[in-house]
Amino acid sequence: MDTSIYQTKKTIKLGTDDIAVMEDFVATEFPFTIMLNGTEFATIVCTPENLRELAIGFLASEGMIRSIDDIKTMHVDNSRGFAHIELNKPLPAAEWDHSKRFIGSCCGKSRQFYFKSDVQTARTITHTFTVTKEQCTTMMKTLQEKSNDFKKTGGVHNAALCTRDELLLIRTDIGRHNALDKIFGSMIEHNISAAEKLIAFSGRISSEVLLKVSKIGIGMIISTSAPTNLAIELAGDLGITAIGFARGNKMNVYTHPERMMETKDLKITD
Amino acid sequence: MDTSIYQTKKTIKLGTDDIAVMEDFVATEFPFTIMLNGTEFATIVCTPENLRELAIGFLASEGMIRSIDDIKTMHVDNSRGFAHIELNKPLPAAEWDHSKRFIGSCCGKSRQFYFKSDVQTARTITHTFTVTKEQCTTMMKTLQEKSNDFKKTGGVHNAALCTRDELLLIRTDIGRHNALDKIFGSMIEHNISAAEKLIAFSGRISSEVLLKVSKIGIGMIISTSAPTNLAIELAGDLGITAIGFARGNKMNVYTHPERMMETKDLKITD
Repeated sequence: MDTSIYQTKKTIKLGTDDIAVMEDFVATEFPFTIMLNGTEFATIVCTPENLRELAIGFLASEGMIRSIDDIKTMHVDNSRGFAHIELNKPLPAAEWDHSKRFIGSCCGKSRQFYFKSDVQTARTITHTFTVTKEQCTTMMKTLQEKSNDFKKTGGVHNAALCTRDELLLIRTDIGRHNALDKIFGSMIEHNISAAEKLIAFSGRISSEVLLKVSKIGIGMIISTSAPTNLAIELAGDLGITAIGFARGNKMNVYTHPERMMETKDLKITD
Repeated sequence: MDTSIYQTKKTIKLGTDDIAVMEDFVATEFPFTIMLNGTEFATIVCTPENLRELAIGFLASEGMIRSIDDIKTMHVDNSRGFAHIELNKPLPAAEWDHSKRFIGSCCGKSRQFYFKSDVQTARTITHTFTVTKEQCTTMMKTLQEKSNDFKKTGGVHNAALCTRDELLLIRTDIGRHNALDKIFGSMIEHNISAAEKLIAFSGRISSEVLLKVSKIGIGMIISTSAPTNLAIELAGDLGITAIGFARGNKMNVYTHPERMMETKDLKITD
């Protein structure tokens, strides 16, 4: 299969008064299958780069591994789109129902998990740090400037692992969740600490995105897009600062404003 | 659970030079579990409206039903987020591996399916009809004007079932695929023909979106967003006209230009 991250396709471009046939860039969509202990575990549709990181991050996100030491052997076949992974432990049958719905006894009150695996792997973020609004603005501006593939194809999302002052790692994918899993995978493989780090993100903050941030162990996510109600409720419960609609020098802080200098004395809990 | 499609959340709004705390609208994210013949089949995260349509469209899309007659009984519990569905047939064990990867013998040549269920349910669209560029422009303008929930929350996608001249049905969801499944479900329930219909869409055209259009049996999709390479290849194979970046009076035609008056004599096959 073609493993370039974008391709050219012949396109008819209709303008206001003209028609032209030309080559245009489109994002590649690549099926990537993870074989775990010899069994087909999942097929992820993704952008074909950083596949090793994606596999590691996905398994950590699903609660199948906790550190790189849980992986005995790993072979990624980039051209065919397969990862063959052997863990140091057998797969307990119970872990397989990771997509089953979790029905809590206090439904509708707090911790709005709906998948069983999330109950096991999501964690509350307790580390404290403070950023300024200007640092956030600069971070999002840099993310946008470096997002060349989006400009080319209009079809990918970007996530960056940041300190207050720097973008450490940018990952791109047609899937929002994959971009985050690639960052998670890289952090696990290179043992990068989540303390005092932030995620800058181009996609919407859904509950799934928020749970991934929690699993990575990061206390702050800033996105150009909108959050959902469930993501805001989870962010509140899990100690994560959620910032949306970060565009130019404007942004909305939805939860835990104590991590931003300008908002640290404001209250938004109901 | 709260079943309104958006909610208000207290938000700190940082402007260029000012800070205000106010109520803001955010899209509701709602877990909806489909119980099929007494077993948990899937949990879909969605916008809590048109849940009955969503369940029917999802089951059709997954190849579990072909018409409304395949459903013996159906009860949707809106407030708890459950659909209890009994089919007129038992679930064959083989149909359960619908998310398993399909490895064709001619991999990389044509029909780039990667899930087994898609091989069974995708179909080639043969019906012919022609629209004008102006009809497409009007359709997309109307879709945008009617998308009030997006304007409120910035967090939902819209899909519309259209004839050349009219939007018959608009469905909204935080998930692109769900918006299409709601349309599919309504068409199945009310026996609406797919002939000479189009889909107007706010989301990216991924292979999954394209396959849904094929399963619904519709020959044309127009989106404000970008397509992926795999979606374009599938659209070419399955006889579907794929139009992307439809903004103002501009748009890109990627496949089967014969269905648009202005492009019907142009060739874009390589």
